[in-house]
Amino acid sequence: MSNNSLIKTAQACRQSAQKLAMLSTEAKNAAIEEVAQALESAKAEIIVANGADCQAAVSAGIPKPLYNRLKLDEAKLKDAIAGVRDVAKLSDPVGAVQIHRQLDDDLILKRVTCPLGVLGVIFEARPDAAIQISTLAIKSGNGVILKCGQEAINSCQAILKAIGQGLAQAGISPDVVQLLTTREETLELLSLDAYVDLIIPRGSNSFVRFVQNNTHIPVLGHAEGICHLYVDAQADIAQAVDIAVDAKTQYPAACNAIETLLVHKDIAPAFLPAVTEALQARQVELRGDERTRAVVDVAVANDADWATEYSDLVLAIRVVDSLAEAIAHINDYGSGHTDAIATQDADAANVFIAQVNSAGVYHNCSTRFADGFRYGFGAEVGISTQKLPPRGPVGLEGLVTYKYQVVGDGHIVASYTGTDCKQFKHQDLG
Amino acid sequence: MSNNSLIKTAQACRQSAQKLAMLSTEAKNAAIEEVAQALESAKAEIIVANGADCQAAVSAGIPKPLYNRLKLDEAKLKDAIAGVRDVAKLSDPVGAVQIHRQLDDDLILKRVTCPLGVLGVIFEARPDAAIQISTLAIKSGNGVILKCGQEAINSCQAILKAIGQGLAQAGISPDVVQLLTTREETLELLSLDAYVDLIIPRGSNSFVRFVQNNTHIPVLGHAEGICHLYVDAQADIAQAVDIAVDAKTQYPAACNAIETLLVHKDIAPAFLPAVTEALQARQVELRGDERTRAVVDVAVANDADWATEYSDLVLAIRVVDSLAEAIAHINDYGSGHTDAIATQDADAANVFIAQVNSAGVYHNCSTRFADGFRYGFGAEVGISTQKLPPRGPVGLEGLVTYKYQVVGDGHIVASYTGTDCKQFKHQDLG
Repeated sequence: MSNNSLIKTAQACRQSAQKLAMLSTEAKNAAIEEVAQALESAKAEIIVANGADCQAAVSAGIPKPLYNRLKLDEAKLKDAIAGVRDVAKLSDPVGAVQIHRQLDDDLILKRVTCPLGVLGVIFEARPDAAIQISTLAIKSGNGVILKCGQEAINSCQAILKAIGQGLAQAGISPDVVQLLTTREETLELLSLDAYVDLIIPRGSNSFVRFVQNNTHIPVLGHAEGICHLYVDAQADIAQAVDIAVDAKTQYPAACNAIETLLVHKDIAPAFLPAVTEALQARQVELRGDERTRAVVDVAVANDADWATEYSDLVLAIRVVDSLAEAIAHINDYGSGHTDAIATQDADAANVFIAQVNSAGVYHNCSTRFADGFRYGFGAEVGISTQKLPPRGPVGLEGLVTYKYQVVGDGHIVASYTGTDCKQFKHQDLG
Repeated sequence: MSNNSLIKTAQACRQSAQKLAMLSTEAKNAAIEEVAQALESAKAEIIVANGADCQAAVSAGIPKPLYNRLKLDEAKLKDAIAGVRDVAKLSDPVGAVQIHRQLDDDLILKRVTCPLGVLGVIFEARPDAAIQISTLAIKSGNGVILKCGQEAINSCQAILKAIGQGLAQAGISPDVVQLLTTREETLELLSLDAYVDLIIPRGSNSFVRFVQNNTHIPVLGHAEGICHLYVDAQADIAQAVDIAVDAKTQYPAACNAIETLLVHKDIAPAFLPAVTEALQARQVELRGDERTRAVVDVAVANDADWATEYSDLVLAIRVVDSLAEAIAHINDYGSGHTDAIATQDADAANVFIAQVNSAGVYHNCSTRFADGFRYGFGAEVGISTQKLPPRGPVGLEGLVTYKYQVVGDGHIVASYTGTDCKQFKHQDLG
């Protein structure tokens, strides 16, 4: 697709999305139900298409984990369709009145949430992601341009065809959901500042960083998840061991798994042997600084370890002199994702929570709770490690923005300037 | 200042700000009062320093409007100090609990607003801006690195000295407010992603665009304000004329003044002569498309006019066939700032409000209301035309972000996975 035709695609998507944006919650939910039914009707076709993708992938010798993500059997497709219907049950992020204020008689200000416009979503092999993100886009009133991995083209085309039929059935233009398939289009998509309002990259850290560095469009996502557990002098040792084991081993590839364990010097002699035993029993490779290695027999950690996301059963350990040193370490080496303190000292916890500059700051629980579903958001669009909102696990609210609406009856600013002018009332309304 | 020492400056600012972030509202307000008193005590010194700046500026032959912004007499300084005390009266943007949810027994999620960290504010000749922005930074718990224009160096140094004394009096490190003075430092500041969380540029459109294009730090501001008034077929003509006059002439240099007037073809024969007379009486130069010029005798508008922010008594006029054409024109040529419709037709107004992609969408009132003070925010940090929040006029809330705090009692994720696992409660708390 040439750049010019990609612009046309984006324009068509934006124009159709403008109509989608005006639909009621009921109308959007009805459309989502039509999409679910269309996907059900197209089940056989989608599975055949996915079979072709899988066969090609096997011939190309793709790694097993990638193959597993690509493979869409009947059960997985059924789950994905159930997920579509779950999105219909979520509350509508559009139309929430955040501010409702009388500026003066008959001059009313409202701040109301509204769709962003067009989302650009770039994902890898998982075809079920196309189903999920399209549904989230419809619910939030946005158009979406999907770019799927090469491996999943046939699957995604079959899925998009069904989604388009469902939309058409509901009287919505299928143009609101677009599919790109070539690698060149990824770069072109990133350059469409004028037509795309948010990019959501789903892939490896290096891919997300590439996206962040190659677009002026806001990016929702995170490159790295270097999370920490700090075990304070006043920690409950058994509890801290349990949290360390869960945060490292429950799902080591997750971005909210810990990579570094910081231990206060006063508790190190008692805590380190206990945690080492528990982690080694789970096959975790441990690397420690000098002071750690003075207590337990583990490999050497060097400076690079503090800045590494292992995403694997490896954990770096460092002994610190104080809470302040732990906080400084986390703010220096962390990625602003999620960091936890284990302590029975409420003051230490409060300082940690206030001074650690991360999206998630936890006390006496595992960093693995950092997740949109666990937070009760119903859906997770992504996790953001940037400072500005939306930050942390982002649900549907990350796909909307707001507008200021002011409705008057011929009001002009000149009436509010000069001597004896009218005064604003600034009265918040229920 | 070399890049290295600028990093040290930023680090010192960030570290001191971390302590500021933990202060209570009362403590911050007390500090603001100390700053006000210190500025009062330093009045004479500040005015002498400003005199030196003004003298140098006159010798350098700076333009009169710039001189007026630079000049700080007793009255202007008094107003600025009164403004400091006004900031103390604003509600604290930090510590607001946005989400408070029981995830499970003794596992509590909170989303709480917190300072961003360090702000970078680049402004031109106005030394009173240094007073205002420093106070807003203190109130929001942020450190701030100010970069003032060359012309205002002596004034700003005297001001910063007084602010530092006030802060010290309140037990806060003066490092939270830093001043840069050379042009080279501006570029260096823009490169400090790791130390600066938000850039606020105050200056010309081209300067703001330069900043936006030369930093990876989020920028709060807008390059252009191309605002529109669309006069619908069902407009009240007298009211629409008043709104057009106010929106164009009440303060033409403002970013929320209109640059283009769109007129529905059905009302053009009656409306155009009336509005032309009223605007020409205010010395507004009018430029129209062919269909406008068929009704009234005005100069020719070409395509470039639709994309121009005149910031002056010039207005482009275009006749459109429909509401949809007006909306398309605004979304194509506008800058997403503020756009208004004049109409007595509620349906047309609703479509306009839903489909115009701007931060402000107005009905039957002047675009000049787009302002943080007029919205009742108490302060305006800037106006943003980006899609994502904060958008439109931004008050103190634009200087904070939020954190997710999760507090448990040894909770781990493993307990919530597998058969017969614990279930989340997701119960919102008062």
